[in-house]
Formats: sequence, C-alpha cells, structure tokens
Amino acid sequence: MSDGAVAVVAGVGPGLGLAVSNRFADAGCRVAMLARRADALEAMAAARSDGRLLPFPCDVTEAEQVEETFARIGRELGVPECVVFNAGGWVRIPILDLDPETFERSWRAGCFGGFLVGRAAARAMVPAGHGTILFTGATASLRGGAGFAAFAAGKFGLRAVAQSMARELGPQGIHVAHVVIDGQIMSPRYARLAAERGPDALLDPAAIAEVYHQLHLQPRSAWTFELELRPWCERF
Amino acid sequence: MSDGAVAVVAGVGPGLGLAVSNRFADAGCRVAMLARRADALEAMAAARSDGRLLPFPCDVTEAEQVEETFARIGRELGVPECVVFNAGGWVRIPILDLDPETFERSWRAGCFGGFLVGRAAARAMVPAGHGTILFTGATASLRGGAGFAAFAAGKFGLRAVAQSMARELGPQGIHVAHVVIDGQIMSPRYARLAAERGPDALLDPAAIAEVYHQLHLQPRSAWTFELELRPWCERF
Amino acid sequence: MSDGAVAVVAGVGPGLGLAVSNRFADAGCRVAMLARRADALEAMAAARSDGRLLPFPCDVTEAEQVEETFARIGRELGVPECVVFNAGGWVRIPILDLDPETFERSWRAGCFGGFLVGRAAARAMVPAGHGTILFTGATASLRGGAGFAAFAAGKFGLRAVAQSMARELGPQGIHVAHVVIDGQIMSPRYARLAAERGPDALLDPAAIAEVYHQLHLQPRSAWTFELELRPWCERF
Amino acid sequence: MSDGAVAVVAGVGPGLGLAVSNRFADAGCRVAMLARRADALEAMAAARSDGRLLPFPCDVTEAEQVEETFARIGRELGVPECVVFNAGGWVRIPILDLDPETFERSWRAGCFGGFLVGRAAARAMVPAGHGTILFTGATASLRGGAGFAAFAAGKFGLRAVAQSMARELGPQGIHVAHVVIDGQIMSPRYARLAAERGPDALLDPAAIAEVYHQLHLQPRSAWTFELELRPWCERF
Repeated sequence: MSDGAVAVVAGVGPGLGLAVSNRFADAGCRVAMLARRADALEAMAAARSDGRLLPFPCDVTEAEQVEETFARIGRELGVPECVVFNAGGWVRIPILDLDPETFERSWRAGCFGGFLVGRAAARAMVPAGHGTILFTGATASLRGGAGFAAFAAGKFGLRAVAQSMARELGPQGIHVAHVVIDGQIMSPRYARLAAERGPDALLDPAAIAEVYHQLHLQPRSAWTFELELRPWCERF
Repeated sequence: MSDGAVAVVAGVGPGLGLAVSNRFADAGCRVAMLARRADALEAMAAARSDGRLLPFPCDVTEAEQVEETFARIGRELGVPECVVFNAGGWVRIPILDLDPETFERSWRAGCFGGFLVGRAAARAMVPAGHGTILFTGATASLRGGAGFAAFAAGKFGLRAVAQSMARELGPQGIHVAHVVIDGQIMSPRYARLAAERGPDALLDPAAIAEVYHQLHLQPRSAWTFELELRPWCERF
Repeated sequence: MSDGAVAVVAGVGPGLGLAVSNRFADAGCRVAMLARRADALEAMAAARSDGRLLPFPCDVTEAEQVEETFARIGRELGVPECVVFNAGGWVRIPILDLDPETFERSWRAGCFGGFLVGRAAARAMVPAGHGTILFTGATASLRGGAGFAAFAAGKFGLRAVAQSMARELGPQGIHVAHVVIDGQIMSPRYARLAAERGPDALLDPAAIAEVYHQLHLQPRSAWTFELELRPWCERF
Repeated sequence: MSDGAVAVVAGVGPGLGLAVSNRFADAGCRVAMLARRADALEAMAAARSDGRLLPFPCDVTEAEQVEETFARIGRELGVPECVVFNAGGWVRIPILDLDPETFERSWRAGCFGGFLVGRAAARAMVPAGHGTILFTGATASLRGGAGFAAFAAGKFGLRAVAQSMARELGPQGIHVAHVVIDGQIMSPRYARLAAERGPDALLDPAAIAEVYHQLHLQPRSAWTFELELRPWCERF
C-alpha cells in the first residue's frame, strides 16, 4: 500500500477500532475514523501527532449519513484502499424477555450498518478494480446460544453480507474478508478479568489489527475469506 | 399428538405453508393459519371440509399483531403444540444495486418475523413444558452468494434465532428445529421448470410437510435441530 | 418398501444396530445383520420369532469378507433396498499417548469399513437405480476435541465418504444419508448414567431407528443428507 | 523467532513444501526438509547457498521412520519451533471403481502421516511449552464430492487430527493451525492452465508460505486455528 493511501474504519471505539486505525496509520495511510461521537473521535485522533487519524462523525446505521460520509471521504481523501466494518454492540437476553426494539437495534448496529458500509465501500472500489473490505465477526457469527438470539441474528446476518459480497466482488478484484473474534478483547474495562485468567488470556487489539493489515496486503492469488482469532487458552 | 391439538403455521401461501397446515390437520389438529391476506386464508380454509384450517389474518412482521394473534389463538383454541414459521420472500439483487429499504424488508420478513413468532410460541409453550417450534430455512441459510446479501442476511439471521432458541429452550422441554429447503419447491408457477428438469426435480410440498410432522413427533430423547431437504438430482 | 424387501445392517451390537434391524424387520424386511461374532448374531436373530433377522458373520474391515458377504446376500436374499453402516469403536486417548496401531484401528473400524460397505452397497444398488445407504455418525464427526484425534479422524473420514457418495450417487437414484448421534445411546451398560441424568437424557435406540427408517422412506423429491439427533437436555 | 531456530517441513516437493522451507530459511531458520527421495531433497537444498535447507529423507507414513527422524532432528538441530505437515496425494476415482488399496494409500499419506508428524512435533514441543504445528488442507478438507471419497476421507481425517490437537495442545502453549488451500497451486506443470485462466488465477506458493510464517509469528493472545486461501477469481 503506497504511502498516503486511504483507509476507513467504521465503528471506532478505544479498543479494536482504534488499534486497527493506528495499524493502518503506522503503514502510512490516512485513516477516516467513523463513529457517532465527534468528541471521542477527535480525542483519539489528537493522540497521534502525525495527523493520519481523521474523525468523520457518522451513525453507520443511517443510510444517508453513510452515503454522505463516503462521498465526503472520496472528495477529501480519495478512493479508499481498505474499509473495515467494526461496529456492533454485544447483548445477551433470554428469548422470553427479549423485546422487539432490542432485537432490531442489535441487527441495525451489527448487520444493517455492515451492509451500508460494505455497499458504500464496494461502490467506491469496483470502478477502481481493487480494494479490501473487512468485517469484524464474533463467536456468535458461527454459533447461536442461550440468550444470544438478538446478538447472533445480527452477527450471522453480517457474515451473510460478507460472504455474499466476497463471492460477488472477488472476481471484480475486491477482497472481502470476515474475521471471527472468538474471545474477549483486552481493554482497561476488562483488567480484572485479564488478571483472573492470567497472561495473554484476552485478545490484544494490536495483535488483531496486525492480522487485519496482513489480510489487506494478501496478493490476489491467495486471498483468505475467513479466519478466527482466539487466545491460546480459550476453549473452542 | 392428541386429536384436537393446536398447531400454528405462520406464513401460509398455496405452497409449503398450506401443505404443512394440511398435514397437521390430517393428523387431527386444528390449525391456525397466519398470513396477511384474509381472503386468501379463507379460500384455503374453505377447501377443506372438516373445518380444521382456521384463518388468522396477521402481518407476522408487526410485533403487536403477532402478540394479539397469539393471544387470540390461546383464548380461542388453547396452547399450541406446534408452531411453524414459514414466512419470508426470495430476493436476488447485486450488492451495488441493493437499496437499504429492500435489505431491511428482506430481514423483516425473513428474520424479524421469525423472532416475533418464535418468541410468542415460546411464551405460550414454556409454562406447559413442551411444544415444537419449526423454522423454514433455505440454501441461503448456510451460504451467501452473488446477489444474495439481502436474502442470506435474513436467512442466516433466522437460523441464529432458531439455534439460540434451541439451545435455550431445549432443556425447558421445547423442541426447536430448522429445516433447510435446498431446492425449488414444486408449485403451479414452476410447472415449466419442473417439466424441463424431469421427474421429482422439484421438492414436493407434501413430502416436506411430512418431515415437519415427523420432527414434531420426535420423542425428546432424540431430537433433531437441523436437517436439509433437496431433490435427488440437485447439486450440492 | 414392499414386504420381503432386503435390508443390511453392518455393525450390529445389542444397541443401535439391533434396534435398526428390528425396525426394518417390523416393516416387513428380511434383514442381513453383519458383525464379527456369529454366536452373538445368532442369539439376536433367535430373539425374534418371525425369522426376519438373518446372521451374516463378517468383519466389515476386511475387503474380501465384505465383498463375499454382499455376494452371498445378493444370491440368498436379493438386491438390498437399504444398507446401514453402524460399525466403529469409541476411543479417547491424549495425543502424546496415542500409538499408531490404535489410530489405525480406529480408522479401520470407523472409516475404512464404511467405505467397504458403502461401495458394496453402491455396486448392488446402482444397476437397480434406487436404494438407500445410511451411515452412523457421532459428535466427533463434526468436531475434534482433546483426546479425540483417533476417533474423530475416523468419524470425519466416514462423513467424507458419505458426502462424496451422496453427491456422486444421488443423481443415479441412490439416497445416501449421514446421521450424527450427538449424545449417549441408552443401553443396560449406561443404566447408572441414565439414572443420574434423569428421564430421556440418553438416546433411545428405537427412536433413532425410527429416523433411519423415515430416511429410507423419503421420496426422492425431498431427500435429507444429514441430520443430528440428541437428547432434549444435551448441551450443544 | 530467533536466528537459527529450527523448522521442520514434512512433505517437500518443488511446490508449496519448498516455498515454505525457503520462507522459514529466509527468516533465519535451519529447516529440516522431509520427503522420501534423498536426491530430490539434496537438489533442493543445494539450490540455496546459505545451507539452511537440510535434507532428512523420511517416509512420513512410516511410524518408525518418523520417530527416528524427529529424534535425529532433536539431536542434530534441537527442538523445532515450527513443524509443517504438507504431504498427501490428490486422487479422484468414482466410488464404484475405487479399490481398497487406493483408499488406504490416500489415507496413509493424507491423514496417518499427519498424525505421526503431528504427534512427534507435539512430543518435542510440549516439554518446551511452545511451538507451532501447521497442517496443509484442501477444498476436500471441508467438502466431499463425486470421485473424492478417498481423497476427502484423508483430508477430513487430517483436519480432525489438527482440530483435536489444537483443542488439546493450545492450553499447553502449542499453536496448531490448519490451512485450507482452495484452488490450484501454481507450478511449472500447470503453466498451461495458468495461461488459460489468466493472471493470478493459480495460488502463488510464496504467497501461501508467507501466511504459514505469519501464523507461526502470531502472539498467543490471538491465534488462528483455520483459514482458507484461494485465488481472487476462484468460485467458492
């Protein structure tokens, strides 16, 4: 990826989203970071002195906002070489207590937003004939479970979008991949859990981000659609 | 299943939904048939002289309507022993042309409706400690494909709901199963396709319905969560 | 299946193999039962007064014996309509302690025998243009696990044989299916376990056998390749 | 991986095996290359002037030879940090024509050898508490198909070994991974096919080897068990 290439990370919090943004910035990219809260984005961008992290406030579950934001990225930065969809919120509620609003919200953040971002990425990349689109999955992308009807429905759906896009866009030169994060990602919030479980029992966001960047660099003769990442001691 | 038991089929058109309804009626059940169009339901019900098919007009993608309809079924017929979710509409559109409204509509019919009906069924059955909930899947429940982002996202999501409910409700005595229909179901509309492909190349709705009934009759020491059905000559 | 049709069950012990044999005999079949010990087969056959269970002593892991036994079945009984492969032995040994002989033995009983029996069945059925071949799988057909390298290698391999045969022979009119038994089958040996776990927590062999027979009866417009069976309270 | 670390590649021909060997040698490793033919190994080793490729003639399907060869590697080079199993031979024969010898040979090369090499690697690594064991899979690791009963049975079985070892040895610090090669690997033999299909339509062995090396370098907080690699234009 040439210096100054454009990457987009949709769904940037202080954990994986920021780590992926930094990994691509370290490689010389200018990185458009998408999330709802402008102030949080600006604080994360300011923590890096080279100015490669660029806040683009955007609710990725709103079709018009996604369209406008990608148009703005195109005008201000150029065609993105890599777009990462990393949004979605964890929820666990027994089926009998699960209300329709929660179910819909989980789908909107986990699946619908992925479709909107993926489609916008594809529209920008297909004319160029190349580009990478990465989706963040979870254990619940492959397995439903007690209390997980809402979360898994969104994550299964996102995987369906990713797989359909991979099969459709691969022959057009676009690399679409889906990364299943099968474990808890390390963050200050999980410091106690990390201490209980012992060394390296939670996923280091920087290690995940390295894999995202490797996927982006794969030559087109040998592309991966799907891989999982989990801590060494995690049961599976 | 004792004579006069109650079954519910949500998503009844002249194909599989009607075949399943008739199979349970043949076994002695009173069958509540749910679909949007009252006139179509009434015509199907009238075609059977024993009065076991009962029209319950309902848009299964509307939370309140589903809740009210299941309440009415409870009052008028009793606790259902088997609930079948069979709604959803096929759609195939390239990702670049797929608009957000179509994507959402496909999810609403294919997945959200399944959650609403599944939850209503579970609420009725859990206090009784038994019952069967069956979901109709498709090839696209297991595989995305070019043009299938919308359809597969709904079908993957429905499978996530079914799998989560199975794992949660099995130990409470509720049998949840997911049937993957991997081929075209025979109907007058597909007469020409059937003629081209030769004998038995399309799925006979009555043969599928027989399997739904077998799943319902499985004793709890040996339950199936998932099986697929396809014509003998179908590639897979 | 017309009265007097021929079924073959390879791998008949007092549990599932005998239950399947009896289910087909109840349906009017003459059933060739294959296992190594002639005396055990004869005792099982003698327990049924209608003479429909017929002992064919055979080591199903020996190519010549399988060939000769199927030739004898053809001469004495006719072309089988259904052949069930049910052999294989459970083994769990940590990888560091697993010797090559045990690994090979597990494969020979679990996979190689399945190939030999499946091929013999196919050779008999393809000229007739119809027939059913059923393979008994296990949890370890879909999932490896600690200590299960040997057992899972055999069971994965058997599933590969079944899937390859299904894809190859389906269009020739032969129905091949694979049943994943995901739990412990009830038998006198497991009476204590059954008592501990509570009612219906172990699979009733007769319930499994019923499903085998249903698979055999499926019309060719709607065939199942794979389904699993597990007790209601089993985690999965 | 520190300079001078030891890697083992079992099943080295002029394609992927050599590419993997060279990738690890480029990273500073001394690489023990295992294959049956000593002369072929020596020619490949001689093509590299730094002496990092070391021929260890060995039939990986023979238990004693594998044991002796790993003992020799331990004595002469030290404990391996990475062991790659890459043996196995492609075969496609209709089920009716498939003889037991071919079926067994395919299993011996594709699965039994993988068990022998994997076990030897585990025995060397477990006392050290770290190390990487990589297995080469194929399309037929995940899917049987017409004519593929023998090949798929071996490849499914190998995946069972890999998955069982991953679940057993992960918590002991050993990283086990399985790479599904879903397409044709480029080699002089396939020059015409490559020309027909167009640029990058066959997998570049060096690109695959890069991924093997990346897997070896993954920190233990984020390990991959399985990923697939295929050309951009390959259908899947």
